[in-house]
Amino acid sequence: MLNLAPITQDSKIFQAEKLLYNTRMLSEFDLIKHYFARHSHSAAGADPRIGLGIGDDCALLNPSPGMQLAISSDMLVSGRHFFPDADPAMLGHKCLAVNLSDLAAMGAKPLAFTLALSLPEANPDWLAPFSAGLLALADHYQCALIGGDTTKGPLNICITVFGEIPPGLALRRDAAKVGDDIWVSGTLGDARLALAGYWKEHPGLIRMDDDEHRQAALRMHRPSPRVELGLALRGIAHAALDISDGLAGDLGHILERSGVGAVLQLDALPAGPVLAKQAREIRRLYTLAGGDDYEICFTAPAAKRAEVVAAGAASSTAVTRIGSIEQAGGLQLLDADGKPVSIDIQSFDHFTSA
Amino acid sequence: MLNLAPITQDSKIFQAEKLLYNTRMLSEFDLIKHYFARHSHSAAGADPRIGLGIGDDCALLNPSPGMQLAISSDMLVSGRHFFPDADPAMLGHKCLAVNLSDLAAMGAKPLAFTLALSLPEANPDWLAPFSAGLLALADHYQCALIGGDTTKGPLNICITVFGEIPPGLALRRDAAKVGDDIWVSGTLGDARLALAGYWKEHPGLIRMDDDEHRQAALRMHRPSPRVELGLALRGIAHAALDISDGLAGDLGHILERSGVGAVLQLDALPAGPVLAKQAREIRRLYTLAGGDDYEICFTAPAAKRAEVVAAGAASSTAVTRIGSIEQAGGLQLLDADGKPVSIDIQSFDHFTSA
Repeated sequence: MLNLAPITQDSKIFQAEKLLYNTRMLSEFDLIKHYFARHSHSAAGADPRIGLGIGDDCALLNPSPGMQLAISSDMLVSGRHFFPDADPAMLGHKCLAVNLSDLAAMGAKPLAFTLALSLPEANPDWLAPFSAGLLALADHYQCALIGGDTTKGPLNICITVFGEIPPGLALRRDAAKVGDDIWVSGTLGDARLALAGYWKEHPGLIRMDDDEHRQAALRMHRPSPRVELGLALRGIAHAALDISDGLAGDLGHILERSGVGAVLQLDALPAGPVLAKQAREIRRLYTLAGGDDYEICFTAPAAKRAEVVAAGAASSTAVTRIGSIEQAGGLQLLDADGKPVSIDIQSFDHFTSA
Repeated sequence: MLNLAPITQDSKIFQAEKLLYNTRMLSEFDLIKHYFARHSHSAAGADPRIGLGIGDDCALLNPSPGMQLAISSDMLVSGRHFFPDADPAMLGHKCLAVNLSDLAAMGAKPLAFTLALSLPEANPDWLAPFSAGLLALADHYQCALIGGDTTKGPLNICITVFGEIPPGLALRRDAAKVGDDIWVSGTLGDARLALAGYWKEHPGLIRMDDDEHRQAALRMHRPSPRVELGLALRGIAHAALDISDGLAGDLGHILERSGVGAVLQLDALPAGPVLAKQAREIRRLYTLAGGDDYEICFTAPAAKRAEVVAAGAASSTAVTRIGSIEQAGGLQLLDADGKPVSIDIQSFDHFTSA
């Protein structure tokens, strides 16, 4: 668990090293106690479902009677999932947001989370904004930090999140039915466009000024988990997942697990506001195969269109109908005229990046 | 969750990098699916408490009615918590064992766990024995792997474990009472002695041949979580914790959280079989302030001595009475004659290592 004099806890083997580090590091790791433990104790005091928070061998949860517990883990590695110099407040937000997004995609209500943190150093100038960004989002969703671990090492942030859902209502990947509409929340592709801006990809195609790049980058660095929509879709949607790796690839998981095919209206995919200004090739590519969108793709019976729209309105989240579930045939793309379109995502990207 | 074609899942930002890696890495990451997913699916099929295992946005647990959920996370970093060339089978065992040890110290029964794994490469020669070691221990305790995450990055293993316990029976650190006996399970210090052997510490004092070093090293690399003892101590013990950083330091957490002091019989501390042959200074130091022991230190009313002994016998775990909880006075050490002993752990180690 989040051991708050963790220089003793985090060097289980290297005991002698611990003794050397002890004096110098202890005060630094007390900072972690300062930044994270207060929140846990106040949260544990306020929520009867939290039996015991940070500070013992285990945290204790009191699951609400009759509810299922939804559990998800995401590990974010510096240089792979975020830039090493990422703004720590946004990074704190994002680490929890991507986990809450998994709860949202299941229709689960956030309950609590654990944080395991490997840090090269206990730097207050990083820890203060990181914890502030993380705990602001936690507070927003009344999702208590109940424990975890801290250690010295390459920057690595692993969050395990817990949510609740009534049995039978979870929105699973394997539940799409032939004839379902396919829907997506919010907009797609601005996060991927921001990355293209950092990397100066497709210079002949992408036109974006600094303000537009900053706007798109907020989608990349500070995603919004669609928790309220996930809750509103309970009992309405069949299958759902969150889009972290691009719509086409993620929808493919639903198709595979449900044993169905799909038709997508390529030019109906809702582009982010910055992406919407780009050339059609880029719009199509990044709405279809962007990444870091953290929108919900879901299927629902055609007879429930009005209920889906009402769920979107009730959760203040845009929802767009983008296609339908078919008997078979994999993923087929149609243009605005209903004609089949073929996009070779990999080749396109490779060709134009080269 | 443990996304089992995770090259799409694990490079959320670096989408272009993903496209480059995709072809080459996918088959390697399929190995992870091979090594971990089978277990999850069979476990999920066998245990009604597992509503849904690996493969969706979240796993789903069905907590047993009326039970509290105990949750603990430990993150193990290469070069800090284990040697980079650690035997992967023992490492797989150890990563789960240290988490189960936290459940044991709480008196909780193992239920399930998530695994988040950052790997420099998907090497079958490492993954096969790692998963075998991990899953053998999981099977032994019927503790199902229900999800997690995989990514490319510096070797880092983060496990979050879930156990069940009836409300009010958790063995908490803050529950020691004045007059309680202090007990410890098993033996102490052989893991620390093994580390001293690797590092050639205290060459004038420690005498150990290669066979003895190997025997001691098993305690370091392949610890045994005292799960059965923890369960047997429900309703008998007051406070408990697992000893990962040395008895003195860890017992200190009980004293601090319970607002009490303690007297320890220094020469009654049960030394591991290899440590038992060493000089008294080394025996005292490593039983008192070793590390990586993963034994349970617990307190219980003096009136329940027979019940504690019976709990040890029922769980086939040695239990040794080593002291008592006092009103105050911090941690006092007595020798076999009842005379106070002062050991400056830090100075001793520093002096003799220098």
